Amino acid sequence: MKIKNPLDMHLHLRDEKMLEFVALFSAKDFKAGVIMPNLITPLTNLNDLKAYKQRVLKACKNEDFIPLMTLFFKEYDEKFLENAKNEIFAIKLYPAGITTNSDNGISSFDIQRLKPTLNAMSELNIPLLVHGETNDFVMDREANFAKIYEKLAKNFPKLKIIMEHITTKTLCNLLKDYENLYATITLHHLMITLDDVIGGKMDPHLFCKPIAKRYEDKDALCELAFSGYKKAMFGSDSAPHPIHTKECCGCAAGVFSAPVILPVLAELFEKNSNEENLQKFISDNACKIYNFNFEKEKIINLKKEKWQVPQKYSDVVPFMAGKNLNFKVI
Amino acid sequence: MKIKNPLDMHLHLRDEKMLEFVALFSAKDFKAGVIMPNLITPLTNLNDLKAYKQRVLKACKNEDFIPLMTLFFKEYDEKFLENAKNEIFAIKLYPAGITTNSDNGISSFDIQRLKPTLNAMSELNIPLLVHGETNDFVMDREANFAKIYEKLAKNFPKLKIIMEHITTKTLCNLLKDYENLYATITLHHLMITLDDVIGGKMDPHLFCKPIAKRYEDKDALCELAFSGYKKAMFGSDSAPHPIHTKECCGCAAGVFSAPVILPVLAELFEKNSNEENLQKFISDNACKIYNFNFEKEKIINLKKEKWQVPQKYSDVVPFMAGKNLNFKVI
Repeated sequence: MKIKNPLDMHLHLRDEKMLEFVALFSAKDFKAGVIMPNLITPLTNLNDLKAYKQRVLKACKNEDFIPLMTLFFKEYDEKFLENAKNEIFAIKLYPAGITTNSDNGISSFDIQRLKPTLNAMSELNIPLLVHGETNDFVMDREANFAKIYEKLAKNFPKLKIIMEHITTKTLCNLLKDYENLYATITLHHLMITLDDVIGGKMDPHLFCKPIAKRYEDKDALCELAFSGYKKAMFGSDSAPHPIHTKECCGCAAGVFSAPVILPVLAELFEKNSNEENLQKFISDNACKIYNFNFEKEKIINLKKEKWQVPQKYSDVVPFMAGKNLNFKVI
Repeated sequence: MKIKNPLDMHLHLRDEKMLEFVALFSAKDFKAGVIMPNLITPLTNLNDLKAYKQRVLKACKNEDFIPLMTLFFKEYDEKFLENAKNEIFAIKLYPAGITTNSDNGISSFDIQRLKPTLNAMSELNIPLLVHGETNDFVMDREANFAKIYEKLAKNFPKLKIIMEHITTKTLCNLLKDYENLYATITLHHLMITLDDVIGGKMDPHLFCKPIAKRYEDKDALCELAFSGYKKAMFGSDSAPHPIHTKECCGCAAGVFSAPVILPVLAELFEKNSNEENLQKFISDNACKIYNFNFEKEKIINLKKEKWQVPQKYSDVVPFMAGKNLNFKVI
């Protein structure tokens, strides 16, 4: 199986030693990745962003991989955004405190207040990536955010709004209602429900935000991905956490899928769809949405070969740890 | 505050070293406890049950505490039950594989098949305690079991059926629809929702079965307990697990509340109800339902004194670890 220019439209690489350790997993298998800005000090200025990009590139060694950098959303003025335009791919909005390193996020979705920033982003064609969760009951957080997505979509019709790592049937449906709404879908949300997290024994390595939902939600996500639906893009949300921050009291949220993405997707699409739709989901849809035009093509070849996912990579437990996979990147 | 003959109507003491370690927490604070039979080899015969009772009594040292023994439900004939009658308090039914050590449970609720056993139990006035969960989606398991409770309640109108550790508004309502349905309610389900388990960071020490549900479910449970509703009894479901089986990949289900029950209940009822309703919830309701008549009265005195719950008792993390409590048993 061949995949052309695979793109990870939602990726956490963290910083320092963790960055140096995890970056290559993505850099080897992907042509580009959208790098999330929620570092311990969120990326809100261009100097920090440029310096981080250099660290990312260094960690990617000489792999043919483009880090698409994002700023952490706050109220930015137009002048700043004009300057930023060429350095960034998008701006990522977090509701305050909703996930890892998001304490400096947005605490109110007052359209009047957000208008100057979002109008400027519309004019400059800077996409808005959104972690869409309210602070309601954990199983309702994403669906309850639908009304905020609607408000944003209606008030900023020229703004590209990406509903990140969607997990509910509600948002799968909403995606079709507004032209300017797009979505990323993770690998793990195509495969697990809340039953996998807490239905048998509790599995901290499948604990993530948004939390996996019901079977009908997973089915709706699979329907979008497996049909190659044009507004659905792959974004892994791969997020490494050392084992001592997962298997503990107060487990951190995040699934580290980077080392297994393409083999597992190949298997899923072989079983439930086809290679053509995988190509759309993993690259072509995003290329069309963003008019990507890569100078150099990156082809990833996968062959049928059984291998077992290691229980750990360094001190991080990966998604599918210990499982046997049928495809291997060669 | 004084509590007369406090009863824990649902208690896991396990066996061997763990039994020896945890039994005293309950034996000191309670007059009696209903001891669950889901040992690694479930208690299904009288010899094992009597031997376990002796081990329990030994572990309770010389405390004034009555272990009310239960058998693990399977199809028993009438003769066996007649012999068992004086040795047991009740029989506990587990659907197969639904919780810790329940693999030998019931895999079908075929009334015709259960009839001989349940009719004999009715005749002999042996209560049926039920872990009421189906194997559906984790958030629906208990509510979906309501139809089985209804079937049991209708078919065996003289059988006392206790819906154990209820966690949903659905079962709170069902309790009022059938005269022969009763319920136990834990301490932790009066205090937590799924948000506490997985809404912020993930907390393995609050992972239990049935899993904590929504706010409206917790509110319905509190309404029953705080009003002293006559068919609701306290049952802690306190279940100790060593820390290495909780803070790990594949965390065991159970909350170890035994060391803090009475102080926390005293605080909850002081804030939301009164001493009289606490007395009903923790003892009087069960005494009426079962016609308990204890030869010797056990009075537990609680005084207002701040203390901090230890982070661990031996290698078990208790409910409310590290929290400050206002009442202390003296």
